[in-house]
This record gives sequence, C-alpha cells and structure tokens, in this order.
Amino acid sequence: MVDILHKVGITTLEGLCGWWTTDTQGEAGKVGGVIQFRFGAGGIDMKVLELDPAKRVLWQVVDGPQEWIGTKVGFDLKQEGDWTIILFKHQGWKEPVEFMHHCSTKWAVFLLSLKSLLETGKGAAAPNEIKLDSWE
Amino acid sequence: MVDILHKVGITTLEGLCGWWTTDTQGEAGKVGGVIQFRFGAGGIDMKVLELDPAKRVLWQVVDGPQEWIGTKVGFDLKQEGDWTIILFKHQGWKEPVEFMHHCSTKWAVFLLSLKSLLETGKGAAAPNEIKLDSWE
Repeated sequence: MVDILHKVGITTLEGLCGWWTTDTQGEAGKVGGVIQFRFGAGGIDMKVLELDPAKRVLWQVVDGPQEWIGTKVGFDLKQEGDWTIILFKHQGWKEPVEFMHHCSTKWAVFLLSLKSLLETGKGAAAPNEIKLDSWE
Repeated sequence: MVDILHKVGITTLEGLCGWWTTDTQGEAGKVGGVIQFRFGAGGIDMKVLELDPAKRVLWQVVDGPQEWIGTKVGFDLKQEGDWTIILFKHQGWKEPVEFMHHCSTKWAVFLLSLKSLLETGKGAAAPNEIKLDSWE
C-alpha cells in the first residue's frame, strides 16, 4: 500500500463545494453519510467514517475510479498559534501508478484552493481549478 | 521507505533557477556534478546520478535537512502528443513525518512553477513561491 501525503495551513474547514468540486451533494455532516462529488460525467462517492470537527475527518471511497475504491481520504487538523494545520492523507493505493502521481499533484491544487477559499473567501473548485496534464 | 509522487505536463525541462530557487549554482549538466540549491540561510546539495536529456534526471541529496540526506529526487519525462509529461518522485523517506507532508505539497507548488515557467516564461521560484504554512 502507498499513500499520498500533503500539508497546508489554513484557518477552518468548511464548504466542500468551494474548494474541490462545485457539484457536491450528500450527507457530509454525520458518520455513515455518503457524499457525492461530481466532476463532469464522472464522480466519486465517499462514506464518512470519522467526523470530529476541528480535529479529524476520514472518508472512504465507495464508488469512483477503480484505483480509488476502498482507499481512505483523511484530514487531521491542529492549531499552531494563528495557524490551523491540515495534514492530508489519501491512503491505501495498491500501487504507485501514474494515476497516483496525477492525483497527488491534483490534491495539492485542491488543498491550495481550500487554503485560498478560507483565507480570501474565493477558492478554485472544479471545473475552475488549475489543469495539470493531458488527462483533463 | 516512503515516497512523494507527482505528475505535471509541460513542454521542456530547463532553467532550475526559474522554478525552484533563484539561488542555484553548481554543475547540473553532468553525471557526478553537485548542484547547490539555497533558500535563505538553508539549502540542499544534490549530486547528479543520472542525466538523459528529455528522458530522465535523477539526483541524490548529499547535504541538507537531515530527513533528506540520501533520498533521491527524480524526473521521468515522456512525450504524449503535444504534451511532455513529468513523473516526479522524491524517494526513500524513512518515515511519513509531518515534514514529508509539507515537502510533498511544496514540491507540487514548485512543479506548478516549473509548468508555468515553461509555458509562459514566468515561474515562481523561491523566495517568490506560494507559502504553505507556519514553517516558512
């Protein structure tokens, strides 16, 4: 198993539509809820496994790209002075395939979007995020 | 061992000063050469292990942050239609420490700087890159 890791510092965690994809629906606010993230025709469904506001959010992929099924996406938050730090992990990839490279850089783009949303009020959620390569 | 992975698509690979840090010196152009990357007071020295223009560059960290010593930084390039794809790896971290999370997101920022440099002529090398958290 191999994992994507990232770290950014921001001030709070809210508003999924504003930083990842504008087409987000479902029950993000309770354990066991399923969130539907859509990107054009495709999408990802995540089940909420853990939810401890201002501390930890853990989701598991229940539908989406084959390589993502069963993987877990986690956000650990902590306060350091004026900063809230997010330690992000997308864990449990079976192999370090090219798609994992793509998703790693893309997560960084979306986490910078989240940082911007919370610091300035304006994120860059899909379909308005930075495009990386020929796959988009 | 754990590895940072990233992927971006660009059009060529050159000009280290323009995308990572403006204070770059040394011998990047031959195997065995050592490149000195400086960021304010600190810095990283990398030895060139492999150099196959338009295909592959592999460096090894010979001086710098303790967690980086001995790790390898690699760029694999390939052509896909109008795109050059870079598969980036920073391999051989002993543990997935918080500093690895930081460096992963930071590499994404610098790879987006590289992409911008080559596509628009203007990158965002240190000290002018996006700042992530309280460590900078």
